[in-house]
Amino acid sequence: MGWGDLGAFGEPSKETPNLDQMAAEGMLFLDFYTANPLCSPSRAALLTGRLPVRNGFYTTNAHARNAYTPQNVVGGIQDSELLLPELLKKAGYINKIIGKWHLGHRPQFHPLKHGFDEWFGSPNCHFGPYDNKELPNIPVYRDWEMIGRYYEDFKIDLKTGEANLTQLYLQEALDFISKQQTSQQPFFLYWAIDATHAPVYASKEFLGTSQRGLYGDAVREIDDSIGKILGHLQQLGISENTFVFFTSDNGAALISAPKQGGSNGPFLCGKQTTFEGGMREPAIAWWPGHIPAGEVSHQLGSVMDLFTTSLSLAGLQPPSDRQIDGIDLLPVILQGKLIDRPIFYYRGNEMMAVRVGLYKAHYWTWSNSWEEYGKGTDFCPGQSVSGVTTHTQEEHTYLPLLFHLGSDPGEKFPLSFASEEYQRAMERISGIVQQHKDTLVPGEPQLNVCDKAVMNWSPPGCENLGKCLKVPESDPQKCSWPH
Amino acid sequence: MGWGDLGAFGEPSKETPNLDQMAAEGMLFLDFYTANPLCSPSRAALLTGRLPVRNGFYTTNAHARNAYTPQNVVGGIQDSELLLPELLKKAGYINKIIGKWHLGHRPQFHPLKHGFDEWFGSPNCHFGPYDNKELPNIPVYRDWEMIGRYYEDFKIDLKTGEANLTQLYLQEALDFISKQQTSQQPFFLYWAIDATHAPVYASKEFLGTSQRGLYGDAVREIDDSIGKILGHLQQLGISENTFVFFTSDNGAALISAPKQGGSNGPFLCGKQTTFEGGMREPAIAWWPGHIPAGEVSHQLGSVMDLFTTSLSLAGLQPPSDRQIDGIDLLPVILQGKLIDRPIFYYRGNEMMAVRVGLYKAHYWTWSNSWEEYGKGTDFCPGQSVSGVTTHTQEEHTYLPLLFHLGSDPGEKFPLSFASEEYQRAMERISGIVQQHKDTLVPGEPQLNVCDKAVMNWSPPGCENLGKCLKVPESDPQKCSWPH
Repeated sequence: MGWGDLGAFGEPSKETPNLDQMAAEGMLFLDFYTANPLCSPSRAALLTGRLPVRNGFYTTNAHARNAYTPQNVVGGIQDSELLLPELLKKAGYINKIIGKWHLGHRPQFHPLKHGFDEWFGSPNCHFGPYDNKELPNIPVYRDWEMIGRYYEDFKIDLKTGEANLTQLYLQEALDFISKQQTSQQPFFLYWAIDATHAPVYASKEFLGTSQRGLYGDAVREIDDSIGKILGHLQQLGISENTFVFFTSDNGAALISAPKQGGSNGPFLCGKQTTFEGGMREPAIAWWPGHIPAGEVSHQLGSVMDLFTTSLSLAGLQPPSDRQIDGIDLLPVILQGKLIDRPIFYYRGNEMMAVRVGLYKAHYWTWSNSWEEYGKGTDFCPGQSVSGVTTHTQEEHTYLPLLFHLGSDPGEKFPLSFASEEYQRAMERISGIVQQHKDTLVPGEPQLNVCDKAVMNWSPPGCENLGKCLKVPESDPQKCSWPH
Repeated sequence: MGWGDLGAFGEPSKETPNLDQMAAEGMLFLDFYTANPLCSPSRAALLTGRLPVRNGFYTTNAHARNAYTPQNVVGGIQDSELLLPELLKKAGYINKIIGKWHLGHRPQFHPLKHGFDEWFGSPNCHFGPYDNKELPNIPVYRDWEMIGRYYEDFKIDLKTGEANLTQLYLQEALDFISKQQTSQQPFFLYWAIDATHAPVYASKEFLGTSQRGLYGDAVREIDDSIGKILGHLQQLGISENTFVFFTSDNGAALISAPKQGGSNGPFLCGKQTTFEGGMREPAIAWWPGHIPAGEVSHQLGSVMDLFTTSLSLAGLQPPSDRQIDGIDLLPVILQGKLIDRPIFYYRGNEMMAVRVGLYKAHYWTWSNSWEEYGKGTDFCPGQSVSGVTTHTQEEHTYLPLLFHLGSDPGEKFPLSFASEEYQRAMERISGIVQQHKDTLVPGEPQLNVCDKAVMNWSPPGCENLGKCLKVPESDPQKCSWPH
């Protein structure tokens, strides 16, 4: 989803009454960011509290390339990384992931090996259907074992867009919450639904209900589900004891718009880019009785803060043996404070931009290559800002492009290099960037090597279902990351 | 102001708490339009309930050109037009305009000759300062006579952006409301403030208070003023007896962005164009005790509807001897009904586009000429949609460009001409357009002739102030309208 996909964020169809209500009862974050303009690195950052360049969810195969975990990727989340559920366990939490994991699909990367107690969902995106020869269909797991595959046992009708997956994920969430309430155990639920990711889907009940087409149908179903989850918490009487946060892992994929992609509101470009449209996210915190209703925050926030904030809520300290990028947002959420901190915009191994206060400095600009653009891949449809949405990787490290996101949220009007404002702002920003770069210790890149043999041919449990496929010979290659 | 300038419409700084509150207490219109992408014709349409092509606020000097009333325009509102205040008078209303009139500045066009009882404000935009030789400074009137001129007696500091005009206009509004409440006379107040029109200004108290710069300061002051007006109505105990509507006369002028222009949210282009950014407006209806709080409407509305709706509120019928384009929105506002009606997007003498339901068909496309564009005049900064934001006037009357504004509010993805959806939608639209064109009787164009002699040299009252200027010889010319 993109920043502009919710009514509360100005989507003109205003079809998200439950999320809008969540915002009206909680705190709306207008300046909240993901840690990467792509799914896997962003999710790895959320769960580790660390930038992908630290936790290994990036590639060095080429400069400034987005990478993720398609099923031929060899890497995944390392044992050396400490994930939020691993830490919460120490405080007695039971942890469940529902939906897309995306931190590696090989056995050693399994979410139950990284702190989760339960899982219902898939390791990768719901792309397909595949022929199970060239490519296996993506498995759906319940806990340790697969219980079927997308398109085979979990239907997605690409023609109509119909799939009841969000309903399955919703029911799973409601059941989990009920169970924990009964057992009085504190819980962490990571509800990682993916209906708005192409191929976009919605249940029959929601198909055709949106002004926005299938994408809007999917948004409506998610919105409806969130209303039901919040209502369930209230009905169980645990809403004042349950902190809920809604956000997204990257900007709307404008490349898939208008049928399969959403809106980034007034912001520039979308998913895959480090412009605001690629990384600024809708974000809402909800905690009745603790967060005053109708609050709005301009805190620069990040998905990585959910790591630190969740630990704080559980009375835990973040690990002290490594750099954690997330900050504890509780003073922001509970006392309305504003914490001064930068936002770094990474693409693969490169810091493309940084935001400090209302200023954003681009050290590198790139939408995508001329070659990909020529093939029709456009991350900025209908948008073109000269010298900004470039189709070659442009270096500006000696004289960054500077934007004032207050007066120019769309990154259309770079400040004059000669202006006093530029000098003053860059002086502060340069110091912050220098310190960041000087102290950065990049992690071992996990997304460099691809191999057909590691795909989901024979996931655990396949034998019970008669769904084991023949594993081809190993043939490791450098993954190709065009963006 | 543009659609995207209010927090309730997704402006990322969310700095309009009073307008957002007005929306939360009233009805938010998400699909509300002005009648023209430029000020004068839009205001003439509001007050007559008729399209500019009917009421004469257009030009035939060239095809599809925007025109307005700079002070050398000879024309203005004709006596044959019936204005809202003229009609309300019959129901015992006292009518006041505060701010910019813009329906002609020559004596016969004076607002007090067209139904208003009181006036405080100016006939034209607050451009200047002028030298009073080539051009006179714009006068400010109190009722029949001028009481000073902009930049001379009513200061606007172009360097700092400071001017206390909005405060003057606010006080005037509060006083007028108090007076009518005392005399128990029903009133119509047309509060036509212009602080967000370049040169943008704000009072000292508001300067530097916005994240958005001077433009945002102006928005904040307007927002604050509206809060005070609504509060005043409540304090006087007449809020349940007073219908208030907030809207704008054209999209944000992106040509003046980011310092002097606002935001059209996710929409294409801005003021001067017939894309959504040029004509879709923020709109809020407020009437405590009558409109249920927090309502949202997708009614296709128009500023011209305020004419018919206001008459309806006063128990009056619209004139039956002429075509009225505005509809009565009371069933929408009070009962949540949706009325099927088209929206026509005109530029001068040409119907450029039409919206029917969620479909918008462009019969002509034009942003502006290559010549003007080459000079740096860009109505769509950072936006460029191939074949849509054209720099030559492109005719599509035989095969209109069709957009679905639900899935594609930004008008970026024209539907395929070959699609069934296109055929089905155009069948309906063609009939509506045909009927509109067949029955259209254009008014006598008022914005064709310009003459230096008609400028504000010696407005009534100038002699009392010693501010009469020498009137040059008459030299009528065809006005030049580049856009």
